[in-house]
Amino acid sequence: MSECDIRRMAEEARRAARELARASVAEKNRALLAMAAGLTGAHARILAANAEDVAAARAAGNTSAFVDRLTLTEPRIEAMARGVRQVADLPDPVGAITDMWRRPNGLEVGRMRVPLGVIGIIYESRPNVTADAAALCLKSGNAVLLRGGSEALATNRAIALVLSAAVEAAGLPPASLAVVPSAERAVVKEMLSLHGLIDLIIPRGGEGLIRAVREGSQIPVIAHDKGLCHTYVDESADLGMAAEIAYNAKVDRPGVCNAMETLLVHVGVAAAFLPPFVARLTAAEVEVRGCPSTRALAPAVLPATEADWDTEYLALTLSIRVVASFEEAVAHIARHGSGLAEAIVTSDHGRAMRFLREVDAGAVFVNASTRFTDGYEFGMGAEMGISTQKLHARGPMGLTELTCEKFIVLGGGQVRDSRK
Amino acid sequence: MSECDIRRMAEEARRAARELARASVAEKNRALLAMAAGLTGAHARILAANAEDVAAARAAGNTSAFVDRLTLTEPRIEAMARGVRQVADLPDPVGAITDMWRRPNGLEVGRMRVPLGVIGIIYESRPNVTADAAALCLKSGNAVLLRGGSEALATNRAIALVLSAAVEAAGLPPASLAVVPSAERAVVKEMLSLHGLIDLIIPRGGEGLIRAVREGSQIPVIAHDKGLCHTYVDESADLGMAAEIAYNAKVDRPGVCNAMETLLVHVGVAAAFLPPFVARLTAAEVEVRGCPSTRALAPAVLPATEADWDTEYLALTLSIRVVASFEEAVAHIARHGSGLAEAIVTSDHGRAMRFLREVDAGAVFVNASTRFTDGYEFGMGAEMGISTQKLHARGPMGLTELTCEKFIVLGGGQVRDSRK
Repeated sequence: MSECDIRRMAEEARRAARELARASVAEKNRALLAMAAGLTGAHARILAANAEDVAAARAAGNTSAFVDRLTLTEPRIEAMARGVRQVADLPDPVGAITDMWRRPNGLEVGRMRVPLGVIGIIYESRPNVTADAAALCLKSGNAVLLRGGSEALATNRAIALVLSAAVEAAGLPPASLAVVPSAERAVVKEMLSLHGLIDLIIPRGGEGLIRAVREGSQIPVIAHDKGLCHTYVDESADLGMAAEIAYNAKVDRPGVCNAMETLLVHVGVAAAFLPPFVARLTAAEVEVRGCPSTRALAPAVLPATEADWDTEYLALTLSIRVVASFEEAVAHIARHGSGLAEAIVTSDHGRAMRFLREVDAGAVFVNASTRFTDGYEFGMGAEMGISTQKLHARGPMGLTELTCEKFIVLGGGQVRDSRK
Repeated sequence: MSECDIRRMAEEARRAARELARASVAEKNRALLAMAAGLTGAHARILAANAEDVAAARAAGNTSAFVDRLTLTEPRIEAMARGVRQVADLPDPVGAITDMWRRPNGLEVGRMRVPLGVIGIIYESRPNVTADAAALCLKSGNAVLLRGGSEALATNRAIALVLSAAVEAAGLPPASLAVVPSAERAVVKEMLSLHGLIDLIIPRGGEGLIRAVREGSQIPVIAHDKGLCHTYVDESADLGMAAEIAYNAKVDRPGVCNAMETLLVHVGVAAAFLPPFVARLTAAEVEVRGCPSTRALAPAVLPATEADWDTEYLALTLSIRVVASFEEAVAHIARHGSGLAEAIVTSDHGRAMRFLREVDAGAVFVNASTRFTDGYEFGMGAEMGISTQKLHARGPMGLTELTCEKFIVLGGGQVRDSRK
């Protein structure tokens, strides 16, 4: 594929986006239900394409975990179809007028929510992203260019053909979604230069992918860097509650971004809290590393190095630090946190409120597990990843985060006299 | 200045930003009033520094318009002080909880408005930007690094020293604002790489500056590309109103981004509207270029080339095109508009509503002049430029656009069971 083709794809997506922006919620939902039905009706075709990718991945000597992530089955395809139907059930954010005010000269100024336009998604491995992202973009009135990993190219193309045909059958432009049919890096490079044709790039994958996209893009990027989440057990915490929350944050699913990596414990409760809690972690096969004060209270704990405070383990490993004060906990989080999610366990209202205001992260929790950092758990009904940056979307991204607001102004012939 | 110094400045700004984020509105307003008083008290010092810059600019052979933009006077310094005091009067967006909802498991999930952190502003010429931007950033709880043009370096440093001392005297960190004391391009390059230390870059200046910043930045950028605004006179327009609005949009202040560059006229009213309107433009010394239909109705009009439809004249020049339908007007705008501001003049409610929904621009007007595209005119009380992009801030940017929303979650010990 030449560089010129990705530009042509983006231009087609742009034209489709203009039609999509005008589509009614009924039209978009009809297309989504057709997409879901299309997936259900195309099991055989999708599985055949997937078998090619899986065979190639095996032949290339990839790990079985890698091959498993890549492999589709009938239930996995049905889960994709179910996900698409769920998006049809969500409220449509497009067209909402969120505010309207009257100016002294009689102008009515307001804001209207509209699609972003064309979204580019650059992702790795899991083919379910193809259907998920296509559904969320369509519902929010955006066209989407999907550039998945080369190892899933046949699968992603088969899924996109099914979805695109369903969109067309439902009366919306088939170019509303397209998989970039190339594994060449030069195509991604060209894609990232199409400022003016693509409005937003969302990279989903490992640190290397995100860094490369951020450094190479002239288009705004929303990305998820990493999740280094803390739980701070305050002096005033209910220690039973603290143990449940901290245990859950570490053990429930240690390999995900909203799991806890570092536990901070106020010195006033460290002696009561840490020995039984460390024993419980150890019984759950968690490797615990700690500061000298932690080790004095729980001698089985390994020594933590400076690097531990900056490490996203994504595993059954936890670092623990005893802090002398609330302020020290907040300062530790400011220095080492990744801005994804942070939690305090406290029964002191003032400290709860201070933690909410002073800790700078996408999601700040009082007396709950950071594991809830998730679009579905927050009640947004969907999730297009979690943003760890501050511009436009912070924390879990739902449909609304795939739109923007423009100003609308209603007048009765007003003109401006700049000499006044 | 070595590259390392700009990193140190950004680190200091980051520490200041953490303090600023916690500052009360009373503390911030006290600092703003001190900044205004500081400017008033330092006329002599600022004018002396400015005289150096002006002498150097004259010696370098710059145009008198350039030297005029650079030159400060006592009234200009007082206007800066007045602007800072006006920012003190604006409502503080920080800390507002904009929404809060309850989940089935009892978690209360909401959003809280917080500062972005550290903002970098890269701008040209006019030294008043230094005080304006410093005031807006401080009020919204952000630290700011200001990198003005080399020709205004002495002036900008003098202003920043005054402002920074006032901030310190009012009890807030002096590193809340700083002028980058270097004219080297390498410093800008290093500044644009400080992802994680600087949260947002706002370039203000010509196309070359904006492009260089966008291409070189690993930090999110909000920019103003250009303003190519249309006014569309619909078949159903009140032609008297249309003439007033279109004349104002072109003639009131032709050198600014929200002035009209192209007039679109429905064929059904072209014969009645265009001859007297072109005569009025000609009397006001506007050079008019038009499509063949326009020239058939007003023979004095010069022929427009394809390039005219894409040209931001920023001068007393206007291109006019007769369109066969509402749809043709909307399509012309989609193809040639820059996404800043677009207007329709119509008395047909359905077309007014369709124009509002279908035209994709930061501000869409019905029966009013595009010249109103401005933070003050929209009632936002301030303006940090106009964004022509869609992410985060679209159209005029006020204080709210210098903040973001984080999620806050209040629990009573909830944990998540991912096996469910």
